[in-house]
Amino acid sequence: MVGIQEIASYIPEKRVSNYSRKEKFGISDKFIKEKIGVECVSVKDDSENSSDLCIKAFHNLQKKVSINKDEIEVVIVVTQNPDYNLPHTSALVHGKLDLSENCASFDISLGCSGFVYGLSVIESFMKCNNFTKGLLFTADPYSKIIDPDDKNTTLLFGDAATVTLISDNPIYTTTTYSFGTIGKSHKDLICENNTLHMNGRAISTFARKQVPLSISKLLKKVDLKLNDIDKYLFHQGSRFMVTTLARQLGLDSNKYVYDISKYGNTVSSSIPILLEKQIPQTENKLILASGFGVGLSLANVIIKRVS
Amino acid sequence: MVGIQEIASYIPEKRVSNYSRKEKFGISDKFIKEKIGVECVSVKDDSENSSDLCIKAFHNLQKKVSINKDEIEVVIVVTQNPDYNLPHTSALVHGKLDLSENCASFDISLGCSGFVYGLSVIESFMKCNNFTKGLLFTADPYSKIIDPDDKNTTLLFGDAATVTLISDNPIYTTTTYSFGTIGKSHKDLICENNTLHMNGRAISTFARKQVPLSISKLLKKVDLKLNDIDKYLFHQGSRFMVTTLARQLGLDSNKYVYDISKYGNTVSSSIPILLEKQIPQTENKLILASGFGVGLSLANVIIKRVS
Repeated sequence: MVGIQEIASYIPEKRVSNYSRKEKFGISDKFIKEKIGVECVSVKDDSENSSDLCIKAFHNLQKKVSINKDEIEVVIVVTQNPDYNLPHTSALVHGKLDLSENCASFDISLGCSGFVYGLSVIESFMKCNNFTKGLLFTADPYSKIIDPDDKNTTLLFGDAATVTLISDNPIYTTTTYSFGTIGKSHKDLICENNTLHMNGRAISTFARKQVPLSISKLLKKVDLKLNDIDKYLFHQGSRFMVTTLARQLGLDSNKYVYDISKYGNTVSSSIPILLEKQIPQTENKLILASGFGVGLSLANVIIKRVS
Repeated sequence: MVGIQEIASYIPEKRVSNYSRKEKFGISDKFIKEKIGVECVSVKDDSENSSDLCIKAFHNLQKKVSINKDEIEVVIVVTQNPDYNLPHTSALVHGKLDLSENCASFDISLGCSGFVYGLSVIESFMKCNNFTKGLLFTADPYSKIIDPDDKNTTLLFGDAATVTLISDNPIYTTTTYSFGTIGKSHKDLICENNTLHMNGRAISTFARKQVPLSISKLLKKVDLKLNDIDKYLFHQGSRFMVTTLARQLGLDSNKYVYDISKYGNTVSSSIPILLEKQIPQTENKLILASGFGVGLSLANVIIKRVS
């Protein structure tokens, strides 16, 4: 059985403070702290591209676990901000890491639901091809496409990358997934003319309507109660979004995490950054992760601690 | 067991003749017919985008097989020329086809190896999530990024899209795959500043060196001889490329197909266009498909006729 052996992340050190932009956008401390819940956003260096962020995350992974690069059989990068549209960013990562010529590589184009989808894709691809070592990267630096004058986006999104080592020596395995798409609403979060546009209200309505419903359905399907899950890891869109979902589901504050006030919404990296911090929390045996956003798309997974 | 139930394709009617460009590029009829083997390339209408090509392929699929759209559980689009970088093209296809809100959707970023990879990804994703109906699209209209003055690319690449219905009522199932990446050579086929650049000689060397070797290894692994395979479907890069690979492997002319003289190299659509034409050839029980290109990437699969 393959599953998650380890996770590492890279969040660039540079920050842009939202307090420094209060006057420009006519916003208050209360709005920053309580509504969006993002005090500053992480921003990559101009010289860094998506593949570079992946490599830095990989170097952080190597500090935690010994990796024989020749044993890596598949590399997947989840991104919608690739270095180039063609080739795929995973080929660049493959080259920079000097991986084996027998290693499979491809990118998945997804946004905030991308880590959950990516987990299912890499695990199933590995199982069916009898692979035992793979790397799942997430890297979607929205600073490449954000208009610094757009209040809807520039105050929220931060840059980051993560890498998840999938192996036959897992600490977590996944049990059940659920997925959803409302493609007709795809224009609510879109990059046109190299600039991100977000209809925040529409995305919020989508999340409030679909996410609690999909989680309830998933739990019912596997005959679990809300309280059987030890920790809920929601995609970290904003403080308002996360606390609203928790309230809708009726979750106690110890049952979920909000953690992005110092770096922002890192798209597909938001959930693995949270899950990395769960690894020392051995008492949490069942975790539910829920990603939602661009597409519009959603994906849930129940993750089980196995060692 | 899920596998390929049906395949349909869409090749735009508009053609640009390479004979009309003989003078401009200083090329002969012999070069057109015997070397590149592409007499004209298919070109989509300016008003068509990648998702539109997918929809047209889907309409052609509906002419062959009755599809209950509510039963589709996953849609994957293989492309490196999406309508938008964000959202994924599969979300647009999902919306245009009015598919179920419970349908999973994501894109895979890969080039000429994309269909073979995509087959493995969609089959394994469906198996592990207990899905029984899925759609795998390929659509990579290079006319969006080709410089009409670049002889290396404009004479070769044509536009097309395909859709493969994966279901629990297959006529083909896949047996074994092999994959490979040489990420260090990714610059040999790259889109920079919205323009495709190809080092044809390097790509040709890569294919001649890696493809026959990888096919021989795959056959050896599953204890098959070259002649046990009824038909070899190579990615259709050019006539020279296909016949060179066949010669290297020592294949008789009835063992492989060359079929792109009237539309060109359609990237990830080239193999499914060939496989669609194999469906009536019930005598061909074992097919080996081999995709290679952008990345640099390669993927092989052995496909078995089961009904």
